[in-house]
Amino acid sequence: MLKKLLLSTGLMSVLVPATLAFAADDATPTQLQSAIDAVWVMLAAILVIFMQAGFALLEAGSTRMKNAGHVAGKTVLTFGICAIAFWAIGFGFAFGDGNGFFGTTGFFVDGSEEQAASAFSSLSFSDVPIAIKFLFQLAFAGVSLAIAWGGFAERGKLPVYFIFGILFTVLIYPIVAHWVWGGGWLSKIGMQDFAGSTVVHLQGATAALVATLLLKPRIGKFNKDKTPNLIPGHNQVLSVLGVIILWIGWFGFNPGSTLSAMGDGFFGYIALTTNLAAAAGAVAALVVSWMYFGKSDIPSMLNGVLAALVAITAACAFVTPRDAIIIGAVSGILTFFTSQWFEKAGLDDPIFAFSVHGIAGIWGTLSTGIFATPELASKVGVGKPGLLYGGGLEQLGVQALGVVGAFLFVLVLSFIILYVIKLTIGLRVTEEEEIIGLDLSEHGTYGYPEQMKKAAQGGAAQVI
Amino acid sequence: MLKKLLLSTGLMSVLVPATLAFAADDATPTQLQSAIDAVWVMLAAILVIFMQAGFALLEAGSTRMKNAGHVAGKTVLTFGICAIAFWAIGFGFAFGDGNGFFGTTGFFVDGSEEQAASAFSSLSFSDVPIAIKFLFQLAFAGVSLAIAWGGFAERGKLPVYFIFGILFTVLIYPIVAHWVWGGGWLSKIGMQDFAGSTVVHLQGATAALVATLLLKPRIGKFNKDKTPNLIPGHNQVLSVLGVIILWIGWFGFNPGSTLSAMGDGFFGYIALTTNLAAAAGAVAALVVSWMYFGKSDIPSMLNGVLAALVAITAACAFVTPRDAIIIGAVSGILTFFTSQWFEKAGLDDPIFAFSVHGIAGIWGTLSTGIFATPELASKVGVGKPGLLYGGGLEQLGVQALGVVGAFLFVLVLSFIILYVIKLTIGLRVTEEEEIIGLDLSEHGTYGYPEQMKKAAQGGAAQVI
Amino acid sequence: MLKKLLLSTGLMSVLVPATLAFAADDATPTQLQSAIDAVWVMLAAILVIFMQAGFALLEAGSTRMKNAGHVAGKTVLTFGICAIAFWAIGFGFAFGDGNGFFGTTGFFVDGSEEQAASAFSSLSFSDVPIAIKFLFQLAFAGVSLAIAWGGFAERGKLPVYFIFGILFTVLIYPIVAHWVWGGGWLSKIGMQDFAGSTVVHLQGATAALVATLLLKPRIGKFNKDKTPNLIPGHNQVLSVLGVIILWIGWFGFNPGSTLSAMGDGFFGYIALTTNLAAAAGAVAALVVSWMYFGKSDIPSMLNGVLAALVAITAACAFVTPRDAIIIGAVSGILTFFTSQWFEKAGLDDPIFAFSVHGIAGIWGTLSTGIFATPELASKVGVGKPGLLYGGGLEQLGVQALGVVGAFLFVLVLSFIILYVIKLTIGLRVTEEEEIIGLDLSEHGTYGYPEQMKKAAQGGAAQVI
Repeated sequence: MLKKLLLSTGLMSVLVPATLAFAADDATPTQLQSAIDAVWVMLAAILVIFMQAGFALLEAGSTRMKNAGHVAGKTVLTFGICAIAFWAIGFGFAFGDGNGFFGTTGFFVDGSEEQAASAFSSLSFSDVPIAIKFLFQLAFAGVSLAIAWGGFAERGKLPVYFIFGILFTVLIYPIVAHWVWGGGWLSKIGMQDFAGSTVVHLQGATAALVATLLLKPRIGKFNKDKTPNLIPGHNQVLSVLGVIILWIGWFGFNPGSTLSAMGDGFFGYIALTTNLAAAAGAVAALVVSWMYFGKSDIPSMLNGVLAALVAITAACAFVTPRDAIIIGAVSGILTFFTSQWFEKAGLDDPIFAFSVHGIAGIWGTLSTGIFATPELASKVGVGKPGLLYGGGLEQLGVQALGVVGAFLFVLVLSFIILYVIKLTIGLRVTEEEEIIGLDLSEHGTYGYPEQMKKAAQGGAAQVI
Repeated sequence: MLKKLLLSTGLMSVLVPATLAFAADDATPTQLQSAIDAVWVMLAAILVIFMQAGFALLEAGSTRMKNAGHVAGKTVLTFGICAIAFWAIGFGFAFGDGNGFFGTTGFFVDGSEEQAASAFSSLSFSDVPIAIKFLFQLAFAGVSLAIAWGGFAERGKLPVYFIFGILFTVLIYPIVAHWVWGGGWLSKIGMQDFAGSTVVHLQGATAALVATLLLKPRIGKFNKDKTPNLIPGHNQVLSVLGVIILWIGWFGFNPGSTLSAMGDGFFGYIALTTNLAAAAGAVAALVVSWMYFGKSDIPSMLNGVLAALVAITAACAFVTPRDAIIIGAVSGILTFFTSQWFEKAGLDDPIFAFSVHGIAGIWGTLSTGIFATPELASKVGVGKPGLLYGGGLEQLGVQALGVVGAFLFVLVLSFIILYVIKLTIGLRVTEEEEIIGLDLSEHGTYGYPEQMKKAAQGGAAQVI
Repeated sequence: MLKKLLLSTGLMSVLVPATLAFAADDATPTQLQSAIDAVWVMLAAILVIFMQAGFALLEAGSTRMKNAGHVAGKTVLTFGICAIAFWAIGFGFAFGDGNGFFGTTGFFVDGSEEQAASAFSSLSFSDVPIAIKFLFQLAFAGVSLAIAWGGFAERGKLPVYFIFGILFTVLIYPIVAHWVWGGGWLSKIGMQDFAGSTVVHLQGATAALVATLLLKPRIGKFNKDKTPNLIPGHNQVLSVLGVIILWIGWFGFNPGSTLSAMGDGFFGYIALTTNLAAAAGAVAALVVSWMYFGKSDIPSMLNGVLAALVAITAACAFVTPRDAIIIGAVSGILTFFTSQWFEKAGLDDPIFAFSVHGIAGIWGTLSTGIFATPELASKVGVGKPGLLYGGGLEQLGVQALGVVGAFLFVLVLSFIILYVIKLTIGLRVTEEEEIIGLDLSEHGTYGYPEQMKKAAQGGAAQVI
């Protein structure tokens, strides 16, 4: 009534979307549920997009001052590139209808329900508006890409971020996403990867591994006798903040993957297992570093948190709280030792992308084949119970197949792309550029101009 | 049943609001929708209030170490001032019922639906509780004020933040908000400014411009031959974090301006256009800075993100995803060049407030007059299609009139207020205070006491 | 239909929880309300967990560079410890059914509604899923513990964080929580502590006070003549960011304590009073510091914000907006002067935990006995109106009893625990370790390795 009056007098302001205002009187349960689900998944998408801040801080905090502006800034750039490329092409390849390997519909997302209905049947089980589904999935692609950059840190050339960023977003990530989540072949055999230990984390980590191998170690990382030197990150407070933001972001990542707030609070259950795993990973990794080094190591603990979150990502909807703690603790320990081993083996992965997201991604994906309970596997409606819950080795086999398939695909494709870049424009800055730092070499100014200048003036001139 | 038992035994704890507990059994669709809308707009309000952190970090990161504590700290102070002033007076002037120029009801918001019904008919189209509507609008006023402070950076006196903060919140911002959103004259002629490219951003930026002009450039910014010097911000990592927080905050800013989660996910559509514009702004500004400087410039890219978000703020609900990309990219480029030009013209706007929020605010407001589609203009229920979609020049004219009206109003009123302050207590700290920095001059301690002290001891004594 | 087709063809991906997908067609008002409430309380829980970042930044920013990595990192560790201990034991003691002093059911939360129904009748008034209720309450326990650490800052040994963290989480915090919120004796006499001025803040602050007393002041804090020295925190920008995150987190803390989004937007009303109090605390504390020191002090203002938020935590649901401003302003002033007095009395509480959370917690708890209105006390359904609203001294007496009871309980139990630790493994690092800093002593590396190294090289060798 009032609304009609307002409309007739022209007093309705710009904030009055007529369609929304009309809904109040006659909202159906279907519309109400759709709105609830939309709000929940929008919140989840925002949390996962916020993880870009987590990665920017963690990566900047874990590297040196001379590269800090570059490291943080390129996160914004590459999320921008990813957002456009995934909108235009990646989302269609991932979730569009097509064959068992990639989608062939749904490019250039227009946000209409017509396109949603005709192109994205793999997402039609959820009543969330397509624009929000897109943002949620974009956020995942963005996380996978941010993980990959770990392998390029402190020596990659800026143009590579453009080229590889686009190709990863349109050619690599969407294919594996389609296999598992878009109705592809791994989906058909019942692979359990609830929120992407394999799809998001192992993929990003595998690309990082290839980059690590092709870029070679940073200057000064290894001595002539192949023993490694510690190159500590410049700011643990920023790293800690980054990890807390990522922990928070995971409350969108895993529980949001229900794509619904209904189902008797199942998303809350997933938040519970996720949080317990993260907690266990923190404690386990700190303790193990204490035993191993004689001092408890904060970066190791932070990696333990992330490794546990990576592992529980596949399993969060399939396992009990107690098993979530086991999965998280094992992940924290596994990541600690593998990161030590990789370093001893001569790999320089500056922020341990492959240990944290790759090894833990593999462990997490396999863990559902071990710990999935019959009740939860049936509740989710995907796959079978795990080894310890009467399911035998069948589900574990499916999980292993998924891991191997995704790993090999990303390994080969990333290698081809990066090797071609290496042969043409090159992957790595020059030795001189690396020594002065990427802030100067790639952007012309320091990220910390006053502090770097004072260091130079104060006698501690070398920008290590 | 259980609840009655608990009540009768007095076991009901403090966390049992009786009214809420009762609602469970008989919630009507109207109540359910109201709750959904309330949760959504509350989330949006929280995101927009969080933008204060974004501005604090961006502004602190973009200025020098000697001013960093002051710059960050004054953000908290002025949001506090704004929160009380807008509650007492500003909100009534903006959204209270009144005439075409300002509201005359609804002062001292009491959160009751009685006051909501009798004083705020311009907001009655939404079923969100008035307390949440207030917080959402307060968050907007706070953003506009935070933008204005850009023009005062590194030389404004602390008392000015009190005086101008109050006057901007009660006299400037609410008037223009009333014109466009509170049922005022621009609302009546159908101006399209969905979330405030003009109302929020251009207003803040115009006040910043006046401050820039009256305060004059910082010491050392310009040489005697009028060529500018670069005064780089001290911490790009903080600036990056600030910009990501602002990007995230914009998911509240624009989609939350629906004031509802209903309408088939229209708020999700708005989030989609907003995100695409931001992405395009990042890429466009980085590329253009690369071409112009020969090095890609991170602060320019960050400004590009913000400029794109500012521009899409008016247009987000009226345009297609593709046009959102165009609007964002153009905004990033426009802001880059205008910030160069303003500097060459002798203006010292330390964090480019007028380029980022003013020029992009104007462009964004005009852009709906160019790109608004008939379907979306009709869906929102405000104004006509734009020039490229068969609407001719009419809507573009309305948009231009709104821009000119708001700009002139804020220009004149800010000038009068700031000029009177300048003549009386003064706007600017003394030369000596500016050299030692506002942390010491205004607050008595450095924001970074150890680093500033080490700099002095280490031979790099000058606090530049 | 489509869903059935998908299921039959095996195209349903891992993201298709069958139960959720089915709900769409026949959601009842009860299910819809439960989902809305679940989303709201999940958002609130996430915001409160995010407060760990706020505490990490505030505490790190308020201490010295040589301890920064330790201070920030231990926040993640102890939240991890707390998450597991509260899940296993603390939550059952707090909210399990039992007697007037502690709960005896509900250990090892399994997330099932069976356990929820049989063990947690004190929480049964809300239809939020038990997993989310647990996360929300865990977040509160985590905040209380983070406050306690303030008293250990810059000199506590790492193992103490393990031992006291576990004991506080399972023995101290849950008992008082049970008294007030779990159906215990304070609940039965109608104590008004809506979101925990006493339960969360006074408890943490009392433990911090005991730690402050037993650990003794930091080296260099007091001169031989007992006059105090200023030991400024190293980074005000981080402190400001921390406080804004805490402010934001309080929108979950207080409004989320409704445990429902229904009730005509009552949670929005609570957000309104909360925000006004915080704003008043900021302004009042800044002004009072300006009058007292002759310079406005940013750390004092930040403490004023937090003190106001602490105080309004009990009162937020019981008072008018105007009284919220009074409560906040008084809290800011009270905290300012008490923190000065404590320092003069020889207490070294590095981040003012007892003033900010203890004094303000007491004031806030008492304030509802003064300002609670009849309407709001009746709406919440707990206790009586306050002194100024016709309630006489009765409610004030209940509030005072609650304060004294909680304070004495935590004082005695914390003292016993910490004194035993002091006599056995010791509470405090050695003098040498304190001088080199806890980053080196407890973790083996600096949190800011480059800056600390440059300081040493540049002549400002002493790590103060």
